[in-house]
Amino acid sequence: MNKLLIVGTVAFDAIETPFGKTDKILGGAATYIGLSASFFNLQSAIVSVVGDDFPQEHLDLLTSKNIDISGIEIVKGGKTFFWSGLYHNDLNSRDTLVTELNVLADFQPKVPQNYKDADVVMLGNLHPLVQSSVLDQMEKKPKLVVLDTMNFWMDCALPELLEVIKRVDVITINDEEARQLSGEYSLVKAAAKIQEMGPKYVVIKKGEHGALLFHNREVFFAPALPLEDVFDPTGAGDTFAGGFSGFIAQSENISFGNMKNAIIYGSNLASFCVEKFGTERMETLSKAEVAIRLQQFKSLTQFDIEI
Amino acid sequence: MNKLLIVGTVAFDAIETPFGKTDKILGGAATYIGLSASFFNLQSAIVSVVGDDFPQEHLDLLTSKNIDISGIEIVKGGKTFFWSGLYHNDLNSRDTLVTELNVLADFQPKVPQNYKDADVVMLGNLHPLVQSSVLDQMEKKPKLVVLDTMNFWMDCALPELLEVIKRVDVITINDEEARQLSGEYSLVKAAAKIQEMGPKYVVIKKGEHGALLFHNREVFFAPALPLEDVFDPTGAGDTFAGGFSGFIAQSENISFGNMKNAIIYGSNLASFCVEKFGTERMETLSKAEVAIRLQQFKSLTQFDIEI
Repeated sequence: MNKLLIVGTVAFDAIETPFGKTDKILGGAATYIGLSASFFNLQSAIVSVVGDDFPQEHLDLLTSKNIDISGIEIVKGGKTFFWSGLYHNDLNSRDTLVTELNVLADFQPKVPQNYKDADVVMLGNLHPLVQSSVLDQMEKKPKLVVLDTMNFWMDCALPELLEVIKRVDVITINDEEARQLSGEYSLVKAAAKIQEMGPKYVVIKKGEHGALLFHNREVFFAPALPLEDVFDPTGAGDTFAGGFSGFIAQSENISFGNMKNAIIYGSNLASFCVEKFGTERMETLSKAEVAIRLQQFKSLTQFDIEI
Repeated sequence: MNKLLIVGTVAFDAIETPFGKTDKILGGAATYIGLSASFFNLQSAIVSVVGDDFPQEHLDLLTSKNIDISGIEIVKGGKTFFWSGLYHNDLNSRDTLVTELNVLADFQPKVPQNYKDADVVMLGNLHPLVQSSVLDQMEKKPKLVVLDTMNFWMDCALPELLEVIKRVDVITINDEEARQLSGEYSLVKAAAKIQEMGPKYVVIKKGEHGALLFHNREVFFAPALPLEDVFDPTGAGDTFAGGFSGFIAQSENISFGNMKNAIIYGSNLASFCVEKFGTERMETLSKAEVAIRLQQFKSLTQFDIEI
């Protein structure tokens, strides 16, 4: 079985949407990536850090999904990273209410020895120096390195971000971030400029409007599945990244054609994530449900014009 | 050859976008619909009205595209409908600067005798009473009636709009209009409610984010082609409608599968329309260019996951 190494936050989230609010619940980029990637046939491990306030049941959940948690450092007397956000009525924008870095402030990632030869590395949203440090620790060049990031690092750690971006094969960012990073409004031009920064593949996430994959002059588009109700977008982007990197790790095929499939798998898994608060939907989701919805993606997008 | 009857404005537009501005140029929903539908193998006619200030060269252009203009009334001493709009930086929103109804204020549409048995009727955006009047004049039930409308009529002629909506097979509106008409935020729920109002098929246009086709519990999505540059969105929705109705008229097949193809053709033609100001791009567009871009739509959306 191929190995997927996941780096990112394991955290507490408190979320408010027009449909309700939560107390501190399980969250974090690596959590969502790990849960999503667990739908594929692979070995995975998370590199992260939590405080000793982090409940054992959350760790047990990850273990129950066959995720290796030996790379999750537990800091004695430390407090786990906490984020709180309020989504607006259209769910497309949100305000961050609280960000407590806590143990994340001094995080030194340690890649477990048996993952230093991982086939795919998924660098979830974190300080670019942490992302770089993980790549430094690899003893074998991974088949594919995927990086997710956000505007926060463009604002406050751009040189470090540009350094790590040089070293990755795939970058996943949203449309506004692609515009900020490239200085181009047109997403086609933005993707071309970002490819010049290093990543041969650029994935631009547009939330409810789907995702675009650019490579050289080729482009592929995966829609978001139109849903009756969206309750909570938290984690959708990470779930997408987990589906994308998990599918690539399972299939060992990094052709553009297979990346199209990976984008579809990512979109498919993300469509479940938003149906309930936090990780709730992903915890109980079955492979059979995933397969049924994949069929919906097919009929949503496939047509038979002969050219 | 099958017959397509087109109803809508033939007009003057003055357009300003971040990329430039135009004087009074050829515009109008029926103009764009007609130019777009001219890429298919069919007979088409426009029912509309202009003043005698309308240049013969614009009428000649329509005739050169094999569009029957005998249903375009020329009002002596009258002035042609004029619209002027200013697009904002992201091109997704615009302000209407001027609307002069002129001859459109008293427009009584007259369907040419030889189009009272048209196979497909495309009711472009106009007062719903004008749209109804055209349907009243048909002597044979059309195979398909498509209606395009906008929020303006929902605000000021809702009862008349609901009456004509009852009589059509397909409605095309944008996402905000679908929400306004249905009172539902979720587009899935909005489309379900609108289907209860009459149209068995609901097309929701999302501009640069593509278009959705709903029928019973089925849904299909066509992306907009990612473009390097968009100069002027004016007429894109009408060009889409012309491609949709033109393809259906040519193929005589109103199955859901064929409507998927029609949506792709509509999106394909609309992707050209926005590349230059006004009707400029559509006037010189060749069938070969259309075929090449159709291939791009295919690689943009088609994937090969076996389920």
